[in-house]
Amino acid sequence: MAHCIISEAEAVLDKEFPVLDKGFIRLVDYMGGDARVVQAARVSYGEGTKSRREDAGLIDYLLRNRHTSPFEQVVLTFHVKLPVFVARQWIRHRTARVNELSGRYSVMKDDFYAPDLGDIAAQSVDNKQGRGAAFEADAAAGVQSSLKNAQEGMYAAYTELINKGVARELARINLPLSLYTEWYWQIDLHNLFHFLELRLDAHAQKEIRLYAQTLFDITKSVAPCCCAAFERHVLGGVRFSREELAEIQSRLGNGGGVASGAGLAGKELERFEEKLRAGRQK
Amino acid sequence: MAHCIISEAEAVLDKEFPVLDKGFIRLVDYMGGDARVVQAARVSYGEGTKSRREDAGLIDYLLRNRHTSPFEQVVLTFHVKLPVFVARQWIRHRTARVNELSGRYSVMKDDFYAPDLGDIAAQSVDNKQGRGAAFEADAAAGVQSSLKNAQEGMYAAYTELINKGVARELARINLPLSLYTEWYWQIDLHNLFHFLELRLDAHAQKEIRLYAQTLFDITKSVAPCCCAAFERHVLGGVRFSREELAEIQSRLGNGGGVASGAGLAGKELERFEEKLRAGRQK
Amino acid sequence: MAHCIISEAEAVLDKEFPVLDKGFIRLVDYMGGDARVVQAARVSYGEGTKSRREDAGLIDYLLRNRHTSPFEQVVLTFHVKLPVFVARQWIRHRTARVNELSGRYSVMKDDFYAPDLGDIAAQSVDNKQGRGAAFEADAAAGVQSSLKNAQEGMYAAYTELINKGVARELARINLPLSLYTEWYWQIDLHNLFHFLELRLDAHAQKEIRLYAQTLFDITKSVAPCCCAAFERHVLGGVRFSREELAEIQSRLGNGGGVASGAGLAGKELERFEEKLRAGRQK
Amino acid sequence: MAHCIISEAEAVLDKEFPVLDKGFIRLVDYMGGDARVVQAARVSYGEGTKSRREDAGLIDYLLRNRHTSPFEQVVLTFHVKLPVFVARQWIRHRTARVNELSGRYSVMKDDFYAPDLGDIAAQSVDNKQGRGAAFEADAAAGVQSSLKNAQEGMYAAYTELINKGVARELARINLPLSLYTEWYWQIDLHNLFHFLELRLDAHAQKEIRLYAQTLFDITKSVAPCCCAAFERHVLGGVRFSREELAEIQSRLGNGGGVASGAGLAGKELERFEEKLRAGRQK
Repeated sequence: MAHCIISEAEAVLDKEFPVLDKGFIRLVDYMGGDARVVQAARVSYGEGTKSRREDAGLIDYLLRNRHTSPFEQVVLTFHVKLPVFVARQWIRHRTARVNELSGRYSVMKDDFYAPDLGDIAAQSVDNKQGRGAAFEADAAAGVQSSLKNAQEGMYAAYTELINKGVARELARINLPLSLYTEWYWQIDLHNLFHFLELRLDAHAQKEIRLYAQTLFDITKSVAPCCCAAFERHVLGGVRFSREELAEIQSRLGNGGGVASGAGLAGKELERFEEKLRAGRQK
Repeated sequence: MAHCIISEAEAVLDKEFPVLDKGFIRLVDYMGGDARVVQAARVSYGEGTKSRREDAGLIDYLLRNRHTSPFEQVVLTFHVKLPVFVARQWIRHRTARVNELSGRYSVMKDDFYAPDLGDIAAQSVDNKQGRGAAFEADAAAGVQSSLKNAQEGMYAAYTELINKGVARELARINLPLSLYTEWYWQIDLHNLFHFLELRLDAHAQKEIRLYAQTLFDITKSVAPCCCAAFERHVLGGVRFSREELAEIQSRLGNGGGVASGAGLAGKELERFEEKLRAGRQK
Repeated sequence: MAHCIISEAEAVLDKEFPVLDKGFIRLVDYMGGDARVVQAARVSYGEGTKSRREDAGLIDYLLRNRHTSPFEQVVLTFHVKLPVFVARQWIRHRTARVNELSGRYSVMKDDFYAPDLGDIAAQSVDNKQGRGAAFEADAAAGVQSSLKNAQEGMYAAYTELINKGVARELARINLPLSLYTEWYWQIDLHNLFHFLELRLDAHAQKEIRLYAQTLFDITKSVAPCCCAAFERHVLGGVRFSREELAEIQSRLGNGGGVASGAGLAGKELERFEEKLRAGRQK
Repeated sequence: MAHCIISEAEAVLDKEFPVLDKGFIRLVDYMGGDARVVQAARVSYGEGTKSRREDAGLIDYLLRNRHTSPFEQVVLTFHVKLPVFVARQWIRHRTARVNELSGRYSVMKDDFYAPDLGDIAAQSVDNKQGRGAAFEADAAAGVQSSLKNAQEGMYAAYTELINKGVARELARINLPLSLYTEWYWQIDLHNLFHFLELRLDAHAQKEIRLYAQTLFDITKSVAPCCCAAFERHVLGGVRFSREELAEIQSRLGNGGGVASGAGLAGKELERFEEKLRAGRQK
């Protein structure tokens, strides 16, 4: 078997999926899919197991037992337009290959991100890195227009420096983190899943979460069985610590009621209850 | 703060810890420890959080929330003597740096691994990749001596080729996978934990599991709090799928008895019961 | 532009190219080609440079100036059958993704590598890791048949252990490094070039050099311009040290004769003369 | 031998070396040095070669023959304060481990980079990504003060949003690329050399070049012989293509004069002449 040509993937290929106010993700190319994962796994197992399992079952087995290498055999290339502050979080994932637009070569365009009114929110009280309650409509509008005004001013100052002949690599140093950039980003499915696990998480900044969601939606077209197993075991799954497992065992043995002796208390007990109720810690 | 000099680590530095019949692990050097993890994390959080948490609490928080980068700031260098078939499994972990003895440069020594009598076992019936019941003493002795005889024969043939003047890189091609090799292996703590998670698992071949156990024991001297958090959340923890979590929720709501509607059955139910009883799938 | 479908690559896709006595390389899939490299580079340069350079010129520019990231956008997947001692050298390149046949899951086949008579040679006198003069025909035949006999004996012993019911993971530990294994190996073009630079070198063991040559021949079908630039600047190029450059400058200034003052002498001078004559140090 | 404690390195440990107007580099820790490289290489070569070569000679041999793995055994951890636009170039090197100050957790400080008057220059005419002639003093002062004014304005706007209670992760999106950030950056010597080769190059932006120079100066304290070999073969060396080598051969054969038949012409000839005169293409 050579190329995996997947009709669902072909249907989304080269389409721009909008993200945020001016960003997008476009699937440029892909190599492999569910069938390649199975094929690669069967190299490891030799011929003996060939007819034993259904493909979806094998994929589920591989994913839940962390046999990660077959998932590396699927590769996706995306073209992404995204604000610089999102790009800075994104690039921390070092297992992808990137070609980014360079502000040293090119004059940057007048493209900046400003959050929707509904996304302008206060500093979270209990989460040092997150957003809390949304602002009232008026206050949000004030914040939004002050952001937009500042972006206009910055771009005007940039243009002035460019017009004066200042080197592009210097003129751009005061452009803001809300500036849009673009890149080609290529990653294998195993490492994409790791990216998605972290960036679909409720603790990730909302802006990068929206990109992660679009990446995931596109990826479902390329490798639907792999994505289903990932949802079942990782996104929808939950990891309990040794003490939390003991608590579950104790409660079940105890007729389902609240356990006494397993030793979770205070903050730890709260975290446990929330995981038990809601799956992954939100 | 500069070098982390850790007295427990100094005490094991440069000592050979025996593994298998002729192998060993020796801690050559280390950089950082628990304190470095805390220090690196606090770069991310700025000065504001400096006095908020106890160090152990911060380390536990980092590990259970997969803030993996501070653990990468601790690095360990090991000198390992190990059979080639173990080295072949080990090297699949690509995030370490290796310098291995070369059979092209050097004449290999007469060092081969033969399993202890108690480790000679039948093919597992239910686990395609594992060992099942141990052999009877007599049968085991037969297997062991046939392995040892073959090793002697192979080494004699190798020596003969070397003595005839055959190039070392050719003479060695019939040396068996039970041959001992040596390497320097350097890895950061985050990636070492990943290695240990996979290689301490009951599905890993026993020989590499023994190396993993010794690596872990040595590492406890270098970064005890990190290792405790790793034991609590990873080694002693357990991951449930979306369906398994629903089963737990259903049982607990149901008074702790066996649930009806959550939908686990057959093999899936068995796997769940075993995880619930024993922690990580064994 | 979506998939790069390259007719020369399609023509070799899925064909087994034999290497050594029983090995092969087969191109399983590829993503991208010369056009993708250009496309990825132009993301970096923005629209302004679009029509400026011919593609081949741009590729040559990228390669000679070490703009490596566009070459990472091309990915190739190979299915390879190779002896274990070659696999052990090969796997040292950590930037590829591998799925290998497992001797824990499968009974290994009776496939071993024995060198051709013409490849059986003495230890090199001046190169501690290499082969020197070929053996006389008779002596070579003796070595070859002794290797083959030993392989038969080892496989018989392996079969006996398997028949006794010994676990596959144990039975295989005395199989020799000349045993053939198989893997899927996927790598991007930049890292493949690095592999080829090292493994096409005259200092690499002949057996892996033959695999590298076949990899390169297949890759020329996928990305011919990239391969031509790689040949021009890397394979056919040569790197001189500061002192060697001074020697060249001195000789040219000196009318082309042998220089006096530039300071190369002894071994260093010999190495320089050889590089000057033959390109890369052979 | 355990820890390499190197007195020259101890002397610079923990000192802040200033870079740009408000940045710095500080060596936080190091593991290994020249001796570790030698020690690791000798694992590969076995005991046989132990006394053969002087250490410096072995290191030079390793470096010029691209035996890169022993250099990976030396690791350095730096604390760096640097503008975001420099950080964005720096982070493209994926083989290091980073912990960066987070603008989601912490309120950013009023620290921005403004170029010195002498560094304010026009767009280069012949180099699309670089700086050309310096501005006249008056014009430079105008640019500098306009950059500084804009930075003050941006920081005031940021402070206003923070004071209004806007979430830190949103308030910071208009901060400019000239903002200073901080990180822990840990890398092995082989990959550091690769970083330095690219970032000490005349084509790198001046600001990151100054950081690279300081990194290199500090590294010389940790591994002086390795750094000397790197200077000799890489920084001071030059790579010629197949055609350029032919040109050299032709000129030398030709009595040192300008060759006729070797085929370099136009731009290619210019590039060659410049490399020949000045070493690495500047």
